[in-house]
Amino acid sequence: MEIVACLREKIMSIKFDFTLVAEDSKARAGLLRTAHGDIETPIFMPVGTLGTVKAMHLKDVLELGSQIILGNTYHLYLRPGQEVLKKFGGLRSFINWEKPILTDSGGFQIMSLSKLTKVTDKGVYFQSHLDGKKIFLTPESSTQFQHILGSTITMQLDECIKYPALRTDAENSTNLSIEWAKRSREAFINRPGYGQFGIVQGSDFEDLREISCNELTKIDFEGYAIGGLAVGEPQDVMFDTIIKTEKKLPKHKPRYLMGVGKPDDIIGAIKRGVDMFDCVLPTRSGRNGQAFTSLGPINIKNSKYKFNKNPLDQDCFCYTCKNFSNAYIHHLIKSKEILGASLLTWHNLSFYMNLVKRARESIISNSFKEFEKNFLKKYNFKSNV
Amino acid sequence: MEIVACLREKIMSIKFDFTLVAEDSKARAGLLRTAHGDIETPIFMPVGTLGTVKAMHLKDVLELGSQIILGNTYHLYLRPGQEVLKKFGGLRSFINWEKPILTDSGGFQIMSLSKLTKVTDKGVYFQSHLDGKKIFLTPESSTQFQHILGSTITMQLDECIKYPALRTDAENSTNLSIEWAKRSREAFINRPGYGQFGIVQGSDFEDLREISCNELTKIDFEGYAIGGLAVGEPQDVMFDTIIKTEKKLPKHKPRYLMGVGKPDDIIGAIKRGVDMFDCVLPTRSGRNGQAFTSLGPINIKNSKYKFNKNPLDQDCFCYTCKNFSNAYIHHLIKSKEILGASLLTWHNLSFYMNLVKRARESIISNSFKEFEKNFLKKYNFKSNV
Repeated sequence: MEIVACLREKIMSIKFDFTLVAEDSKARAGLLRTAHGDIETPIFMPVGTLGTVKAMHLKDVLELGSQIILGNTYHLYLRPGQEVLKKFGGLRSFINWEKPILTDSGGFQIMSLSKLTKVTDKGVYFQSHLDGKKIFLTPESSTQFQHILGSTITMQLDECIKYPALRTDAENSTNLSIEWAKRSREAFINRPGYGQFGIVQGSDFEDLREISCNELTKIDFEGYAIGGLAVGEPQDVMFDTIIKTEKKLPKHKPRYLMGVGKPDDIIGAIKRGVDMFDCVLPTRSGRNGQAFTSLGPINIKNSKYKFNKNPLDQDCFCYTCKNFSNAYIHHLIKSKEILGASLLTWHNLSFYMNLVKRARESIISNSFKEFEKNFLKKYNFKSNV
Repeated sequence: MEIVACLREKIMSIKFDFTLVAEDSKARAGLLRTAHGDIETPIFMPVGTLGTVKAMHLKDVLELGSQIILGNTYHLYLRPGQEVLKKFGGLRSFINWEKPILTDSGGFQIMSLSKLTKVTDKGVYFQSHLDGKKIFLTPESSTQFQHILGSTITMQLDECIKYPALRTDAENSTNLSIEWAKRSREAFINRPGYGQFGIVQGSDFEDLREISCNELTKIDFEGYAIGGLAVGEPQDVMFDTIIKTEKKLPKHKPRYLMGVGKPDDIIGAIKRGVDMFDCVLPTRSGRNGQAFTSLGPINIKNSKYKFNKNPLDQDCFCYTCKNFSNAYIHHLIKSKEILGASLLTWHNLSFYMNLVKRARESIISNSFKEFEKNFLKKYNFKSNV
């Protein structure tokens, strides 16, 4: 069976290829073809850090229309580790997910686990957050591990820094990330239908973002990520940085805004030319009782939902909204029942998937501005009350 | 829509009725008809304490072939409380479960929460395990609350005691439970297709069990539960007590062994004439990394599963076994991922559902003894190694 699957993959192997289907001002609708399936952009990619989209069955993630999910190099390197993933022929087969995966390189953990890391030119020392064991991650080893993971989209190792950053720190991380981009690219073994993305750094300094873009495009990756955002900056700084970066990125390659964000962040980024997104918000918030709705975010723990027979979102047709009341979900979350986390996560992912889907449709029908206006008007209504 | 559902229920309303389909020595296959659907016995009823079968979607519990689930009076009285359940017209509509439900009366919590309870003739004082608030549960209020829950099968309030018990304690709890049975029956408002079960107590004293059976059958419940087991007694005491009790129970009413048990307990009880079971084992064990398999229970946390490509049970065709390896589930459970609990619970419930289903088939085909022998031989094989 494995031979058949292998042959089938070979026969069906296709070029990693991005086509712009439509443009509406800066907003883009695209089609990304990969060895493991097509991805319609703009796309939201659910986060599956440890080989599971938290609180969800992957069959249900698929049912939601997910075309790609994320995995995380640092976390998967610790657990289950490369020997297990080697034995299973990669992450997709280990977790039984047939569609594409994108794997983060570990660069984000340099920041998020900064108390446990030490960065040198050569790479980054991590002290495992699980057992204190020392791990040395380099551009080469990160890329090689992502090869073992069988990632459809491999990310270069970069150094992500906090906002606000000193000019010198931003300069250093930009230069280091460029060096690591070259080394990551060297270490990348390309296969038909697989791709590797470079990651633009430079904090909110326009010239650094420009240098980063120029150097990365020279390397000629299959796509480009805008890194160093969703690190504490206000929304206007995020949008500004996207504008500064986007104009220096090649038009015919996909652009991926890492770790972003709230629904209005995503709409604003699509408007400014971004194609791909990932964020823990819909899943993490789901486990904490927050739901995203067309009328803005709500906290289902609020006692006003105790008797409420409505669904989370009257405009939503997901499994949760079709079948369950706010009162039931309120009860489950208050009682710390797993099903509460599952139902909210289901709805939140559905909300995010539909958001980008509707954005895509509006770009194709040349009505993105109207879509944006209507969405934001409704979405911000409640929080303004 | 509510009117239509109401009319439909009225039109389809049927007598609560139990028919013996087949007998194989003492083992019985039956059909229990209720207002909310038929139940083929022997049956295993997944436990849904707080209106959710932990770590499962109810749609998946349904897919597993569950014909009835449990709810718990004490826990549901605290959360979400009777006002919410009144507003929703009962538990089934609150949780969106169309099939029958059986609700425990709170009697088991008199034992399991004994540090927080005080029993009088009139009823039992609970100090809420959540906020310390005092609750007074009587046979009447338990029955009334189960009416609000819309329970297909209501249980009488009883006093469950630990094993081993002093003769005087067993006597007192037997007599109290008989009194409470009368008062529970008084308070029960019968509707077509609904039923109420009495609960036999008496610890392991044959004469007390006999008195309890005699008095309860005089009351003429729709079914009888064997209570006061699964409270720490060895398996031979459990089987012995079932034998002593069963012979005094009316043949043409369903018998429900409360809180039991391990797969071999269930097979042994079916052999001795029991029809219905509930137990937290498949769900609770699932969350703790234990899987029930045809070769006996296994602990998936064991490092020997780290690289193991097999399914939990080669004989099982559940969603978990069809799709995921032991190595993946090992990884999920070790990483404390919700999906690990979900996949194990799914498999364990499937294992229990299939166990009683196969027992039923063997009774109908008059081959229960062979089924029992084959099952136990395989099931005990591993644990004997």
